[in-house]
Amino acid sequence: MKLYESGRAPNPRRVRIFLSEKGITVPSEQIDLAAQEQKSPEFTALNPMQRVPVLALDDGTVIAESMAICRYFERLRPEPPLFGRGPKEEALVEMWNRRMELNLLSAVMNVFRHTHPAMKEMESPQVPEWAEANKPRVADFLAILDAELENQLFVAGDHFTVADITGLVAIEFMRPARLELAEDLSNVRRWYAQISARPSAKA
Amino acid sequence: MKLYESGRAPNPRRVRIFLSEKGITVPSEQIDLAAQEQKSPEFTALNPMQRVPVLALDDGTVIAESMAICRYFERLRPEPPLFGRGPKEEALVEMWNRRMELNLLSAVMNVFRHTHPAMKEMESPQVPEWAEANKPRVADFLAILDAELENQLFVAGDHFTVADITGLVAIEFMRPARLELAEDLSNVRRWYAQISARPSAKA
Repeated sequence: MKLYESGRAPNPRRVRIFLSEKGITVPSEQIDLAAQEQKSPEFTALNPMQRVPVLALDDGTVIAESMAICRYFERLRPEPPLFGRGPKEEALVEMWNRRMELNLLSAVMNVFRHTHPAMKEMESPQVPEWAEANKPRVADFLAILDAELENQLFVAGDHFTVADITGLVAIEFMRPARLELAEDLSNVRRWYAQISARPSAKA
Repeated sequence: MKLYESGRAPNPRRVRIFLSEKGITVPSEQIDLAAQEQKSPEFTALNPMQRVPVLALDDGTVIAESMAICRYFERLRPEPPLFGRGPKEEALVEMWNRRMELNLLSAVMNVFRHTHPAMKEMESPQVPEWAEANKPRVADFLAILDAELENQLFVAGDHFTVADITGLVAIEFMRPARLELAEDLSNVRRWYAQISARPSAKA
């Protein structure tokens, strides 16, 4: 198999951290997003959405979408469980991963994509007003997350899960998006210090 | 258990169709979005994101997010499988469900939320330019989907899955968003005619 990915983009990073937590190594190929390699005919044939990451299996199956790739590896190597264990826990991990995606990672990416000069071609047209509309969403969600983390160690409960990975990537992507993590989010800061110290955070 | 939902919103509908396909009946309570009931202290205590649907279990566990609720029921009643069967098929269903969500349903909802007068308070501020930016995305994705459906019966392959449910809800939400399904999308039209004729589509 081969993983097509890109070093600096948030979604490929989610997959790299996931693989690191699982102790899985996969041969990979870098797709140069700045050079728009994801729009080449070869890559478009793999993924018509022209996005990384993409996992190509030896039988020719192509799996795109970060969470689809992570779920594939979760099934191949269930330990440690990063999507929860049992119907209720799996549902709660999915809920929290979705919340971290929809309310945090997507909002941060919207701010970045609609303001950063480097995104002018990839995000066309940029809508600065939409970036502005996302800023208070990030702040509002982080306040809710801070209240939740008052009583639990990780985003989805007592165990590190894929929802923490999405959160880590989102928090760190706030820097290129020029968003600041408020000082008073003490639970978010405690949680972030803890998960960013895991070896997988270097992936 | 009890399902908190709302008759006309797209996400609760995804859960209703899913439950219908599974043959599961769940007691439900309507949340009046027009009256902003989702922002009441009682509902906010259930879901701080103030969104429907929400599934409350008898032990006090609260599961928000449509796909988390659907996954919970998939684990309780695995037949018929709507999230795929086996690692590869499950990954492909997840990939297609994500594509239908991110590139179709979300884009259609963005058009609706940022243009419709009834959304003025719920989507504040409305950004009409962002609605405009989403219109060609809907069209571009439908063209890609049409090409895929040339060779397969359902969105994720040979079987009806949750990705078809997301697609059905997205296509039907194009009407309130005032988006038209292009005449030349013959494969999308064939697929839509087929899935909208299933009894679950009335849910």
